[in-house]
Amino acid sequence: MSSHVFVFSGQSHGLDSAITRPLPGSRRIHVTGSRPDLRVPMREIHQADTVSEQGRDANTPLAVYDTSGPYTDPDAPIDLRLGLPAIRRPWIEERGDTEQLGGPSSRHGQDRAADPATAPLRFAHIRPPRRARSGANVSQMHYARQGIITPEMEFIAIRENQQRHTISDQRLLQRHCGEAFGARIPDVITPEFVRQEVASGRAIIPCNINHPELEPMVIGRNFLVKINCNLGNSAVTSSIEEEVEKMVRGIRWGGDTVMDLSTGKHIHETREWILRNSPVPIGTVPIYQALEKVDGKAQELTWELFRDTLIEQAEQGVDYFTIHAGVRLRYVPMTANRLTGIVSRGGSIMAKWCLAHHRESFLYTHFEDICEIMKAYDVAFSLGDGLRPGCIADANDEAQFAELDTLGELTQIAWRHDVQVMIEGPGHVPMQKIKENMDKELAVCDEAPFYTLGPLTTDIAPGYDHITSAIGAAQIGWYGTAMLCYVTPKEHLGLPNKEDVREGIVAYRIAAHAADLAKGHPAAQVRDNALSKARFEFRWQDQFNLGLDPERAQAYHDETLPKEGHKVAHFCSMCGPNFCSMKITQDVRDYARRHGLETAEALQQGMEEKAEEFRQSEYGIYQPK
Amino acid sequence: MSSHVFVFSGQSHGLDSAITRPLPGSRRIHVTGSRPDLRVPMREIHQADTVSEQGRDANTPLAVYDTSGPYTDPDAPIDLRLGLPAIRRPWIEERGDTEQLGGPSSRHGQDRAADPATAPLRFAHIRPPRRARSGANVSQMHYARQGIITPEMEFIAIRENQQRHTISDQRLLQRHCGEAFGARIPDVITPEFVRQEVASGRAIIPCNINHPELEPMVIGRNFLVKINCNLGNSAVTSSIEEEVEKMVRGIRWGGDTVMDLSTGKHIHETREWILRNSPVPIGTVPIYQALEKVDGKAQELTWELFRDTLIEQAEQGVDYFTIHAGVRLRYVPMTANRLTGIVSRGGSIMAKWCLAHHRESFLYTHFEDICEIMKAYDVAFSLGDGLRPGCIADANDEAQFAELDTLGELTQIAWRHDVQVMIEGPGHVPMQKIKENMDKELAVCDEAPFYTLGPLTTDIAPGYDHITSAIGAAQIGWYGTAMLCYVTPKEHLGLPNKEDVREGIVAYRIAAHAADLAKGHPAAQVRDNALSKARFEFRWQDQFNLGLDPERAQAYHDETLPKEGHKVAHFCSMCGPNFCSMKITQDVRDYARRHGLETAEALQQGMEEKAEEFRQSEYGIYQPK
Repeated sequence: MSSHVFVFSGQSHGLDSAITRPLPGSRRIHVTGSRPDLRVPMREIHQADTVSEQGRDANTPLAVYDTSGPYTDPDAPIDLRLGLPAIRRPWIEERGDTEQLGGPSSRHGQDRAADPATAPLRFAHIRPPRRARSGANVSQMHYARQGIITPEMEFIAIRENQQRHTISDQRLLQRHCGEAFGARIPDVITPEFVRQEVASGRAIIPCNINHPELEPMVIGRNFLVKINCNLGNSAVTSSIEEEVEKMVRGIRWGGDTVMDLSTGKHIHETREWILRNSPVPIGTVPIYQALEKVDGKAQELTWELFRDTLIEQAEQGVDYFTIHAGVRLRYVPMTANRLTGIVSRGGSIMAKWCLAHHRESFLYTHFEDICEIMKAYDVAFSLGDGLRPGCIADANDEAQFAELDTLGELTQIAWRHDVQVMIEGPGHVPMQKIKENMDKELAVCDEAPFYTLGPLTTDIAPGYDHITSAIGAAQIGWYGTAMLCYVTPKEHLGLPNKEDVREGIVAYRIAAHAADLAKGHPAAQVRDNALSKARFEFRWQDQFNLGLDPERAQAYHDETLPKEGHKVAHFCSMCGPNFCSMKITQDVRDYARRHGLETAEALQQGMEEKAEEFRQSEYGIYQPK
Repeated sequence: MSSHVFVFSGQSHGLDSAITRPLPGSRRIHVTGSRPDLRVPMREIHQADTVSEQGRDANTPLAVYDTSGPYTDPDAPIDLRLGLPAIRRPWIEERGDTEQLGGPSSRHGQDRAADPATAPLRFAHIRPPRRARSGANVSQMHYARQGIITPEMEFIAIRENQQRHTISDQRLLQRHCGEAFGARIPDVITPEFVRQEVASGRAIIPCNINHPELEPMVIGRNFLVKINCNLGNSAVTSSIEEEVEKMVRGIRWGGDTVMDLSTGKHIHETREWILRNSPVPIGTVPIYQALEKVDGKAQELTWELFRDTLIEQAEQGVDYFTIHAGVRLRYVPMTANRLTGIVSRGGSIMAKWCLAHHRESFLYTHFEDICEIMKAYDVAFSLGDGLRPGCIADANDEAQFAELDTLGELTQIAWRHDVQVMIEGPGHVPMQKIKENMDKELAVCDEAPFYTLGPLTTDIAPGYDHITSAIGAAQIGWYGTAMLCYVTPKEHLGLPNKEDVREGIVAYRIAAHAADLAKGHPAAQVRDNALSKARFEFRWQDQFNLGLDPERAQAYHDETLPKEGHKVAHFCSMCGPNFCSMKITQDVRDYARRHGLETAEALQQGMEEKAEEFRQSEYGIYQPK
């Protein structure tokens, strides 16, 4: 890797302008909460007026949830070398339960800081880490259980209600009832509701005190469904630079959290760059880095090494850790006759360790020690499903559900420490077996948020697994999964490039939104309504801009009808100028209006009169022969 | 358009070799039925041996359903000017209930045949049309109800059982139970079962006697879920040549039927070229062509003109007609307050006609006349949903379900004529409202096959509607929909190009297969199992070839690891050479084997002994502090 990384000439930040320019027709706005430093970002999408024979009606702008951070705000200075502003710092400091350390307390963190070889790669403005004062617990769950509404909770309440802030057209607020399978989503999300959900364990707020750049968000089934996107170099390809860019690109398209799954040589430095520049929670799988430290030899892993890795990463600011503590020694044999064995990397590492030592996994035996670390920095558990099925044939088997039982047991332990927990889920599951996963998870893990990878609903489409899995993700999101881990078209085949990340994220934004609609989330359908109204009124530009990927929508449209005039044309290329169903429908309405049939009632009455007339006078000539 | 269309120099057929070469690792085979001219095509996918420490095991080839026709068979001569062999001609002739006409009996068919201007575009080897003898009914339903098992039915039975013909590995035949919501899929599909399903109206075999090139297929919920892809030029773009190529491309990727939705000047000629070269059923929406004949003025449509169009198309060989006979005069006002009104083209044409004339639709009043035409050629009804919802807000509304009631009424009329019927369905529907569509359809249309467009589960992703709709299609397929009409990424934005067609078809093959798995179709899971076994054993080439799009899978893989050696590498680019979960799992199995723990039982027992030993001796050192 070049030592010139992040030395950018002639640009303020070096990021491709394609990922920092505002989305078309959009601007980043902020809604201020109860204190001036509580400014909740949203993306406001402008809409053109409706023009009809009756005149011109304004369409108010639509505010949508915005994960993109300051990158899409032309007024926000971006310098990757400085990182994002530490917006949460005052909130953390005011709580008075943390202390700033002199430097990293992990051995590895100290080694990396002192190593001259990594200096050119190192983030220049590293803050000394912060940690809970002795005996303190700084988790949001701990505050919630003490009845404290933190600024993070208020931030989230405003954020989850985003669409309420601008829409005045009551027609756009119409929505279907949902079928929420036991979720209870209120019409208005209040800070107190957020607090209750976090206190109960039904929701988590991943927000390490060492990640003050974070714009808080919540993961829970009574909120909007979230999506995670994975980044990570590997021994074979990619660089720090690319990983930071991928993160920025991922949140631009709508990633709510990012997991850094790097496995290359500069894991520590890559993570620092990502964290300092990330407005979304960052998750990791610490066992990956631990394994690197023992040169890939699983059997040489030790609790001490793993513990040092947890502290190293917690002090950098990682917001949630995947911990495969449910892979117990006695479950490993249950996988021996599977068609595809153990496919989770973390799971297979731990299985190998267990077999090599004939011992229970140190993640399981040291689980309470891990809780002590989690609560000192407010890192949330993402309890890994190391025995998840890797193919349709292995779905919902004994090994998978045995591990889930253990994750339920560990959830209770974590909650005794007031440590936040979510539960990872599969994987590969045929549709008729998806709901059983959700039901069991809610039952044995006491409604802790579920975080699933897909599931993929068939194995036969390598190259299209963003689709095979979006089908499963939409369903399990509807059933109650709180966060969906994205899958790209390269799944099973290779590392995703930028375009794959976009494809994967948009597929998952679709799945999450489809689930929000199905659950009847009050903030969901207004966007569908606004877009469909724009579509019906031939407001082409608004139709593009209200969509999940305005640039692609416009590019696709322009392939067939590139001329600027066509953007206001009352037809589209599918049907041609004289043959457009929406135009005909408008003619039908105009016709009705000319005949004094403006309202549904009048139209109904008028039509009935006409129909009666018709039955008496003219039906005969059209009778079947 | 050039008059040199289909004059190809230096090539036998002029088709791009990319759409005629056999799929990778595949060859077209035929399974012969009870008579030598009943040869059912399948695609046989070769598999490499499994190589392990224990030696080498053969993997038998897998036969999969093949829609691609002779185009992928290097031994089949292809000449688009001659068309495909008329494989069904002897079966049709033997029945002795049809007569060959001297020429087209429709006025328009006669006009086109006599028009010198269209001569250069005309298919050269047009056969005179065939029609039922006076008083005869040549529909497959009619035969079925008389207890006759036609060659078409036997062909279908063999075709639906395709995967049974080669697999010997019992492990690959393991499968989950399905949840089929009232479908009853037998373990073995017999010709008699096909007959019963067609007789009851639960399934249709679209096979016009003027389309003898057809390889018969069935549409019904107790069979494999089918997909349709749409082709069609428009006033704005495309040519005959492109449409034929699109058809060949569409069936290569897996289209079970093709709807020709052309609206340009040469509809008649385009259709002839497509039919003569199509091994799959062709559907049309005759009202589109009728409207062209009156220069787009809906109010000028007449029954006489429409009737002539039906006969014209039936004599060319169209296998099913979309007829929007459910758009009744009194339902039109129900759409006035919709967010997006009437979005079906056929529906809006008929609504406009009804309002202009204050009359009941001639499609409704002449429905029995239409039945007479259908049974003289064996054209199946696809009863159109002209009032389907065009957005989430309008889903499952009064207008939609009022029309569905009428489609149920018309189904009974058609069945009295022994005419085959399927029912078209939406559209745009949020997930929690999808099942209601299926349940109502089964109830009011007495289990006639349902044929849905998606449904799209959200409106907010223009550019990705193949995904928004694959989510809905998979679900409604699971619930019982027999055929899924594909949606491409260009939906709502423009006409699909070749790549869009591929994307749309593969997305729908995924949805259909996911539904087959969920229903527990006996021929479904074996392909998932074979692919996953190949994946687990690092048989990369087999993994690609067993997938729905081998070329894309391989291309994606090669982007990261292009070297030929990597195709046999025991790792992939996601994890790198020393960090691969599948490799670790294999190590786990090898370890177990070395310790005499080969079987699940022995492994379990051995592990329990070890675990006990461990509990007594070593647990202490790993106790939480």
